[in-house]
Order: sequence, then C-alpha cells, then structure tokens
Amino acid sequence: MAKNGKVLILIGSKSDWEVMKEAKTILEEAGVEVLLSIASAHRTPKRVQSFCERCEEGEFDLVICGAGMAAHLAGVVASHTLLPVIGVPLGTGGLLGLDALLSTVQMPPGVPVATVGINSAKNAAFLALRILSLKYPQLRDFLIAHREKTAREVETSAEEIEGK
Amino acid sequence: MAKNGKVLILIGSKSDWEVMKEAKTILEEAGVEVLLSIASAHRTPKRVQSFCERCEEGEFDLVICGAGMAAHLAGVVASHTLLPVIGVPLGTGGLLGLDALLSTVQMPPGVPVATVGINSAKNAAFLALRILSLKYPQLRDFLIAHREKTAREVETSAEEIEGK
Amino acid sequence: MAKNGKVLILIGSKSDWEVMKEAKTILEEAGVEVLLSIASAHRTPKRVQSFCERCEEGEFDLVICGAGMAAHLAGVVASHTLLPVIGVPLGTGGLLGLDALLSTVQMPPGVPVATVGINSAKNAAFLALRILSLKYPQLRDFLIAHREKTAREVETSAEEIEGK
Amino acid sequence: MAKNGKVLILIGSKSDWEVMKEAKTILEEAGVEVLLSIASAHRTPKRVQSFCERCEEGEFDLVICGAGMAAHLAGVVASHTLLPVIGVPLGTGGLLGLDALLSTVQMPPGVPVATVGINSAKNAAFLALRILSLKYPQLRDFLIAHREKTAREVETSAEEIEGK
Amino acid sequence: MAKNGKVLILIGSKSDWEVMKEAKTILEEAGVEVLLSIASAHRTPKRVQSFCERCEEGEFDLVICGAGMAAHLAGVVASHTLLPVIGVPLGTGGLLGLDALLSTVQMPPGVPVATVGINSAKNAAFLALRILSLKYPQLRDFLIAHREKTAREVETSAEEIEGK
Amino acid sequence: MAKNGKVLILIGSKSDWEVMKEAKTILEEAGVEVLLSIASAHRTPKRVQSFCERCEEGEFDLVICGAGMAAHLAGVVASHTLLPVIGVPLGTGGLLGLDALLSTVQMPPGVPVATVGINSAKNAAFLALRILSLKYPQLRDFLIAHREKTAREVETSAEEIEGK
Amino acid sequence: MAKNGKVLILIGSKSDWEVMKEAKTILEEAGVEVLLSIASAHRTPKRVQSFCERCEEGEFDLVICGAGMAAHLAGVVASHTLLPVIGVPLGTGGLLGLDALLSTVQMPPGVPVATVGINSAKNAAFLALRILSLKYPQLRDFLIAHREKTAREVETSAEEIEGK
Amino acid sequence: MAKNGKVLILIGSKSDWEVMKEAKTILEEAGVEVLLSIASAHRTPKRVQSFCERCEEGEFDLVICGAGMAAHLAGVVASHTLLPVIGVPLGTGGLLGLDALLSTVQMPPGVPVATVGINSAKNAAFLALRILSLKYPQLRDFLIAHREKTAREVETSAEEIEGK
Repeated sequence: MAKNGKVLILIGSKSDWEVMKEAKTILEEAGVEVLLSIASAHRTPKRVQSFCERCEEGEFDLVICGAGMAAHLAGVVASHTLLPVIGVPLGTGGLLGLDALLSTVQMPPGVPVATVGINSAKNAAFLALRILSLKYPQLRDFLIAHREKTAREVETSAEEIEGK
Repeated sequence: MAKNGKVLILIGSKSDWEVMKEAKTILEEAGVEVLLSIASAHRTPKRVQSFCERCEEGEFDLVICGAGMAAHLAGVVASHTLLPVIGVPLGTGGLLGLDALLSTVQMPPGVPVATVGINSAKNAAFLALRILSLKYPQLRDFLIAHREKTAREVETSAEEIEGK
Repeated sequence: MAKNGKVLILIGSKSDWEVMKEAKTILEEAGVEVLLSIASAHRTPKRVQSFCERCEEGEFDLVICGAGMAAHLAGVVASHTLLPVIGVPLGTGGLLGLDALLSTVQMPPGVPVATVGINSAKNAAFLALRILSLKYPQLRDFLIAHREKTAREVETSAEEIEGK
Repeated sequence: MAKNGKVLILIGSKSDWEVMKEAKTILEEAGVEVLLSIASAHRTPKRVQSFCERCEEGEFDLVICGAGMAAHLAGVVASHTLLPVIGVPLGTGGLLGLDALLSTVQMPPGVPVATVGINSAKNAAFLALRILSLKYPQLRDFLIAHREKTAREVETSAEEIEGK
Repeated sequence: MAKNGKVLILIGSKSDWEVMKEAKTILEEAGVEVLLSIASAHRTPKRVQSFCERCEEGEFDLVICGAGMAAHLAGVVASHTLLPVIGVPLGTGGLLGLDALLSTVQMPPGVPVATVGINSAKNAAFLALRILSLKYPQLRDFLIAHREKTAREVETSAEEIEGK
Repeated sequence: MAKNGKVLILIGSKSDWEVMKEAKTILEEAGVEVLLSIASAHRTPKRVQSFCERCEEGEFDLVICGAGMAAHLAGVVASHTLLPVIGVPLGTGGLLGLDALLSTVQMPPGVPVATVGINSAKNAAFLALRILSLKYPQLRDFLIAHREKTAREVETSAEEIEGK
Repeated sequence: MAKNGKVLILIGSKSDWEVMKEAKTILEEAGVEVLLSIASAHRTPKRVQSFCERCEEGEFDLVICGAGMAAHLAGVVASHTLLPVIGVPLGTGGLLGLDALLSTVQMPPGVPVATVGINSAKNAAFLALRILSLKYPQLRDFLIAHREKTAREVETSAEEIEGK
Repeated sequence: MAKNGKVLILIGSKSDWEVMKEAKTILEEAGVEVLLSIASAHRTPKRVQSFCERCEEGEFDLVICGAGMAAHLAGVVASHTLLPVIGVPLGTGGLLGLDALLSTVQMPPGVPVATVGINSAKNAAFLALRILSLKYPQLRDFLIAHREKTAREVETSAEEIEGK
C-alpha cells in the first residue's frame, strides 16, 4: 500500500470526469495514490464487482463514487465491499442533482454511503483525507496546512472587500 | 413456462410485503404464475444476482420490484437481465416516496425501469398483464373484464352519490 | 404486423419532436416499425382516440407517449387501449419536468403508465424492446449486442481516463 | 336552465366525495342547481365524454372537477367542452396533493383549468359563484352576504382572543 | 360596457409585461376590451385598491393578475372585489415559479383565485374568454374557431413529422 | 408607550391561535405589552388596514404576523406600515408549511418581511426582543438570562443522557 | 456609534459580494455606517467569533449575513450575539437557493434569524432600516421617501404600459 | 485510546436521543467506546467548541452528530476539528427532514460532513465502523458477521414470504 494510502475513484460515465477529477488532484497533492476509473452500476455491473473484489483484497483504503440521476454506483459499491464509500451526487439529470442526492444518501440500514454535497468532488477528497488520517496520521499536516491557507485567503479577500 | 406466463416479484425487505402482495393476488387471479420473494440490492446483492440468472435462463417473463428510500432494486435487476422490469417506489423512507420514485425512474440511458406510481402494486400488476398479453393474448380477456367491472363500479357509485 | 412488431410514438406537440425522435431511431435500428405522430390529449382529444382505436384494432404492439407539463397524453392513451403504454415526461414546463413526471406516473389503480426518466426517449425505446422481445424473441439479440457495445465503450473510456 | 344556473361537479372516485360535497352544499345554499356525479378520466373515459356532451348541449353553466394523484379529470373535461372548468387538486396520492396540483394547473396553452387550492372544495364553489354572477347577477347578493358574515365572524373571534 | 366585455389585467411590475402582454393580445383579438396596467400589492397597495373600487363599480367583468415570487396581487384583488380573479404565477423569483404558484393558488376558504399554469398568460386569456362567454355568448364562436385552428395545426405538424 | 415597548401580533384565523399564543407569553414575560388579535388579509382587508393605521400612528413598535397557506398577512402589513414586520409561516395548509414559507419570505424588493421558521412563534418572540432591545436596552438582560438558562438546561440534559 | 447606526454585513465567500454589495449601497444612502467583510462559518470560525465579540461590545446595531448552500453563517452569528441578525439565503448551491433558505430560516427555538428572500440583499437592507428606525427615528424619513419614489415609479411605468 | 477506538456522538437536543441512541448501541456492541452527549450549535456554541477541543487533543477517533431543522451541528463540529464527522439529518422540523438533510450535506468546499440518510442513526454507526476499521482492522470481523447475519435474515424472511 502507498505510504499515504490508496483511493479508488469510480465515475458512472465519461461525462462525470470533468467534475470528479478535482478529487483526484487534491488527493494526489496530499500524497495519496489514486486510481480514477469508469464503471457504471447499471451498464457494466460486472466491472463494478471486479473493482469491489480488488477493494476486498485490500488494494484500496476507501472508495469515492460520483454518479448522477438514479445514482446507484456508491450504493452498489457499498454493498460489495466493507470499505468506507463516499458518494458524490452529480447534478447531471435535469433535476439539479436532487435525484442523485436522494438516491445516494437514503441507503437502507446497514449499508451506509458517506454522502457529500451535490457536485462536491472537493469535499469527497477532503472527507477521504480526514478518514485516511486515522491510518496515515501524517495526512493531518496536509489538512492543517489547507485549513490555514483557506483562512488566510478569506482574510486577504476580506481586506480587499473592506477597502472597496 | 406456465400457460399465462410467470412473473418474479422481488421486494427489498419483509416490511414491503404488506403493500406488494396485492400485485401477486391480481396476477394470480389472471392465471399468471408468481414467485414473490425477498432480495435486497444492498444487503444481499448475490441473492439478487442469483434471481437475475434465473431470469436470463428463461424462468420468468418479467420482474416486478418494490423498494423504498434509495430504491436500487429495480435498477440492479434491470442491469442484470434483459427482461422488462417494473419498479414500484415505496413510500417507506420518510420523504413520502419521492426518494424512491426518483431512485427508480431516473435510470441512465439504456437500462430502463418501467416505473409506476408510489406504492402502486396494483398498477405494477396491471402493467405486467398488459405486457404479458403480447405473448399470452388470452390475458386480454382478463383486462377487458376488469375494465368493464371497474366502469360498472363507477356507475354504481355514481348513482349512489347522485341520489344523496 | 411487421416482423419485429410495430410501435406508435405520440408526442403532445411539435416541439417535443427534437427529444422524442431518438426513440424512433433506436427502434428502427432494431428493425421495429414505427409511426411517430402528434396528437395532443387536450387540444385534439378526438385525434388521440382515433389512434387508440387503431391500437385496439391490433395495428400496434405498444405505444410510447412523450409530453410535458400536466402531461396527460400517456394516461389518456392508457385509458383507451389495453396495450402497454410507456410515458416519457418532458422537461418543457419550467419546473424541470417534475410536473410531467408526477402527471405521468401517479396514475390511478388499474390504468398503469410505464414511466421512464425525464426526457429519456432512449429508455422508452429500450423498454419497448424489452417488452416486444416477449413476442419477438429475436429482438433479444439486439439488446444483447447493445449491452455489450455499451460495456465496451465504458471500458474504452475507462482506459482513456485512467491514463490521464 | 335553473334560475341561478346549473353546475356539474365531477369527482374521480367515490372516496373524493367526502371532500367535494362541501362545494355542492355551498352552491345549493346560493340557489344554484347542482349535479354531483362520479366519472374517472382514466377508468371511464366514455362516461366523462358523455357528461361533456351534455355540457356542450347547454345543460350546465360550468364544471367543477375534483381529482387526486395524476389528476387529469379537469383537463380532460376542459378539452371536451368550452365551459369554464374549475379543478380541485385532492391530497389523496401520498405526495400531499402536490402531484394533483401540478397535474391540474400546468395545462398546455389554449386549454385552461381554473385551479384552486389543494382540497379546497369551498373555493371551487365560491369561484363558481363569482363566475356565475356574470350571468346571474343576483348571486352577487349571496357573495356580499357571505363576505360580511365572514368579516363579522373574524371580529367576534378577535374579541374572544383579545380577551384571553 | 364593451360589447364583448371588459377585462382588467394587472401586473406587479414592469418586467412582467413581456410575459403578460400575450393575454391582452388574445382578448383583444376576441373583441374584448382590455385595460392592462401595473399595480403592486406590496409597493402600491392604494393603487391596487383604487382599481378594485373600479371593479366593484362595474367597470370590468373580470380581472387577470400576473405576479412572481410571493405573488399576492391576485389574492389582494380577490379580497377587494367579488369579480372572478384569474392569477398567473410568474417564474421570476429564482424558484422556477413554484413560490408564485403556491402563493397564488393556496388561498384561504372563501376568497378564491382561479390559478393557471406558471407564466401561462395565454391560458389566463382563454379562461377569461370561457368565463366571459357566460355573459357574452358570441365569444363562444371565437373559442370554437380557435379550437379548430389548433386542431388543424396539430394535424399539419403531424403530417410533417410523420413524413420525416 | 409601555416601558418595554408594545407589539401587535396578528393571526389570520382563530385556528392559528394555538400555535401563536406562545409568542405573546414570551413577550409578556419580558415585560413587553402585547395586543394579539385576528385579522385576515383576504377575508377582512379593511380590518388589517385599520391595524396598520394604528401602527403608523405610533401605537406599536413592531408587528408579528402568523398565517398559513398563501400566507399574505405579513406582506400586506409590511406594505401598509414601515415598522419591522416578523412573519411566522404556519404549517396549516397540507403542504407542511412550505407554501406559507415561500409566500412569506419571497417578498419583492423594498417590502421586507423578517421570516422565521415554520410554526416558530417562539423565534418570532425572540427576534422581536432582539429588535426591541435597540430601543429598550434593558430587554437585553432578559435575553442574556434566557440564553444562560437554555445553556444550563442543555448541560443538565447532557448529564442525564451521558449517564444512561 | 454613527448618527444613523452601524451595520455589520458578513458574507461567506468573496463570490457572494456581487449580490450582497447592494445592501451596503442602500444602507449608506440612508446614512448608516457599514462594515462589509468576509467570514466563513466553516472555514474561518474564529474570525466569525471575533466579529461577534465586536457585536457584543456594542460596535454594531445589527448584522446582515449572506451565505449559500448549507448557509450556517447567520445562524452561527445569531448564536454568538444577541443583536438582531438578518439572513440572506444565496442561490449559489445548484439547488436554486432552496438549501440556503431552509438552512437559514429553520433555526431552533430561541435563536432566531430574520430571513429575507433568496438573493434579496435589497430587502435585507430595507429590513435593517425598519429595525434601526426604532433607535434612529430619523431613518423613517428615508423609508417614507423610498416608498413614495417606488410608488411614483410604478405609476410612471403604468402610464407607459397602458399607452402601449 | 480504547482498543477499538472511541467515538463522540453529539445530539442537538434531548429529544433527538430516542433516534440517536441506536448508534451508540451498535458501536458498543462492536466494542467501540462511546460518549453520547448533548450540545447545541446554536444554544450552547461554547460547549460544542469544548468538545471539539477534546477531539483535537486526540480523545476521539471520529464524531457523529444528529440534528434537525437548520441542522448546523455537524457542520460546526467539522469546522473546529479535522476528524471525520458523520451527520445524521433528523426529521424533526416539520419538513420531513429535507431541511436537515440540505443543511447537513451542502457544506462549502473544504469542510465535509459525511451525511447519511434521514434519521439513519444505524447507518451513522455502520459508517463509523467502516471508517474505524482502517485503524482498528479487527472491527472488520464485526462488519462481516453483521453482513452475514443480515443476509441470513433476508433468506429466512424470504422463505417465510415465498410460502405464503
């Protein structure tokens, strides 16, 4: 296993890549190894299962799934592996992502998906880092640095705005 | 295959039986053979697949799935078989079934679920009969008789109401 | 009847054609004969009934209806024929298609509409093919081929994405 | 025609009577003749048309329709007659009447339904009276008296409440 | 009073004119006299009341109100006059007109607003014509002609589409 | 004016009293004088205006309005007075108060209603106290005491729960 | 304290400035002193608290907070200060601001946020002026002048429209 | 630290305990140490911060927060600690938990809350166990055992149902 862990990011279709690639970028900045691939719960169910088997064999620490509409991908993965599964509901289905949000978060008892906001690949990455830091405590430094950087950015913007 | 066809009804959990058994009753009245069983897309994914294999081997003509909340059952079945799959969104999840409706109907291109109204086991049965009548034309008689009976009932109620 | 069956596609107004023509294209690719025409449940109710009579006389195997807003077309057709009726709620009414979805799917007991996702002409076609394959089993080959093609496309996209 | 006009009230099923009968009571208090009957747009389409023919022959001045879920009744009537049609969306479908509201109000251009609030049989009656008073001006007295009575009731309640 | 009646159209702000002017055009085509003006329930309440007084004095036969967001205009007018009041919820408030729809239709018992679809100035006009035809029966000819023209247009479009 | 100010609480109908009386209780505990009365924006518009005139004449410091469904009361009051107006959307209309919330909060530019949560008479009272404390600074002591009491209650409950 | 009071406007991120600056403009036109700055409830919680301490020390009369998505800013400020807090839900989160509206308005008992419409910086300013006028009665003149100006504008627009 | 880790469960008010205690039960069954306490983001912000400090000092491995309405608790905790924070939106606010769901999940970039379904204390516990098993791999056995038990229960129920 990579020194800061390894994350599998699955997206339901190629068109989801534009939104979800940001999760990969952030995780790699933090030194986490990432495999981002495509596997549709509905169009390639066997492909999804094959990724889940690799999860169960210990290749990954956690999974992030991004899907829109009747977004089942995260739920299907959560039913085939016991790793933490993070779901990103995507706003691709005409209903602003409300369909994907409900399809992702309202899981039956015993099979949870850790759901983040609509289209929020960024929060999927930061949630992954918080989870991974239980096993790879050095990731905490990245999170602290990011938090400080964000706070400084707010302060800089504030000065700019206050002066207007 | 039974003379009027054979339908598989799957429900996601035992608590869905109360609503969904009506579909079985109607289909059996029409002389259709029915297997109603439980299989959760999330808690027993292998069990679902095993039913889907029986579908692909030709044991059933179509499948009806009833599930609530992030209702993936119909979608998962539709991804493992090419039979027509009817989905009944159940209003069990606190959001009045809106979550189940969107999770059932908003399927990605190529993997359709024929969705009926929230909790409408009855319409799942009647849709199944319309579909089966393509292969078993004698079912049309049942549908015609039901339509006439319903119309007569409306007329009887109307007379009663008009007189009040 | 055509060798792979015959489908009637009705749309509520000319402006729905752009979305719904994809259903015709897919069905014709599969060798199904298609009549796509316009008939509004509200503006030309007699025209709708005349199509329904042709349905009852056996000219078609099933009907697909696409309509937006208070989308009654599929429901009206389902009340005048006993063929399977597939409804495509269209997102033309300013409420993202939520109005059309509820108007199409929430049918009263006994008169089902097989509802697919908002604007999903494609899934209407694939649902039609699954249903038709009960009577025209050779259509299964088209469905199998499509499923394999889709799976290969996912794999190709996946390779491309993984390499980025 | 009756001296204060004649109104047709149609309900989609017997179970809608409990809510809708209040419209009849109010109209009769105002001296309007009322026929309240049952006719389902989906289960008895011919029965609905037969009522619409009576409308076109001049038997009624306007129509009130109460229906739940994918409430098409008012829309169907509005497409077969040119009388004013008032629609009462009923909260019977599990979605609090939101389905019926959208199915009733979002009619296509040229075929309007005068929609009142969910379950508001009372407002259907009062809207009918406002409309009828164009032709039967003496109904205005009933409306004025009702408005005054309501205002007095508010004042009486107010005194009671202020004293608590 | 004009020979085919007189209608007051009120809009809540100048920006609503673009949508609502179509109601005026249709009514004038039918020979109905129209006064279209601006009066905001919230910003110019006295101006609204002054229009309502003209209503009560018999200058108009009915009122059409178009307003967005917390659309109170139609409700306020309906509380100050006993004429039929038609409300057009406008989709100007960011919530797709859902706010305006609920604010217009969910009136308390006794004070009805005849609500039409979101942005549907056209249906407000046609509803007005249906209502006015109780008092001015010659308007029925306009409605019949329009219904026939619409039906012919559908048939022409249908021929075009069928040939593609 | 009373030593801690005077507040007018208006409710749209007698049935709203059960929910809204809590606002009166809290304000009176804080030493604020309260007049709670009934006035319906739609059924007694003149009564509402007469209260607004008393507002403009300086009898009250602010107004709290509670109303359900197409809740116009707060908006109407805000258009007739320049006092701060607090609106409490009530969940009485079958749509869980969503209709009242949107009708209360989505006011046009220039005529604000300070909206609190659905049925939250309590927050209307506490918002009123925060506002009044600009003019009657001694009310701050009541707010501080309440905040401390609430915090102590949480701590007491916490001890109880932790021990379970 | 400035002669017409002093208001703190906080926004959750720099991108909210475009919408929220209008509140500052209006308040300054009325002679109110304004500090508009950035502080994120989630990314810079300490910065928010530091502003709240300045509130409790009496530097400001009230606070306006604009935030989108899970908009906690106004609520957090309302929990750290006893000043009146006005919340502007911003439509930045893909769900049209419905998420921000519910996150802002549905506060627990005892900690109110005076919520205005989605994106309605203008109404936040006018609500602030109504509240401030309790302490700075001369602000009433600004509000009266604005109300008259608005009414005149409606009349001018009305003349223009009526003449079309 | 306890041998299977230690989890902090915070609820916003005493009334949330009935729903949330199930999370504690499950975690303790798995041998995880749990502190369940009450701390309101709005009514006791300092108490929340004091718990967050204990988090940052390493007393806990993760935090579960349950809150209703404008549910800020999980978001506030996530802004004061870098531990993984799981949010359970509670259906206590009259809007079926939709308000709490959006307030919990729609967090701004960089401050994620791992959201589970409405009222789903059970899924919060199972998500916590999946996360904790990264650091305490022996927890995997509990998860595997639970998964098997659940599957067996489904099979037993299925036999029962099939026999009916």
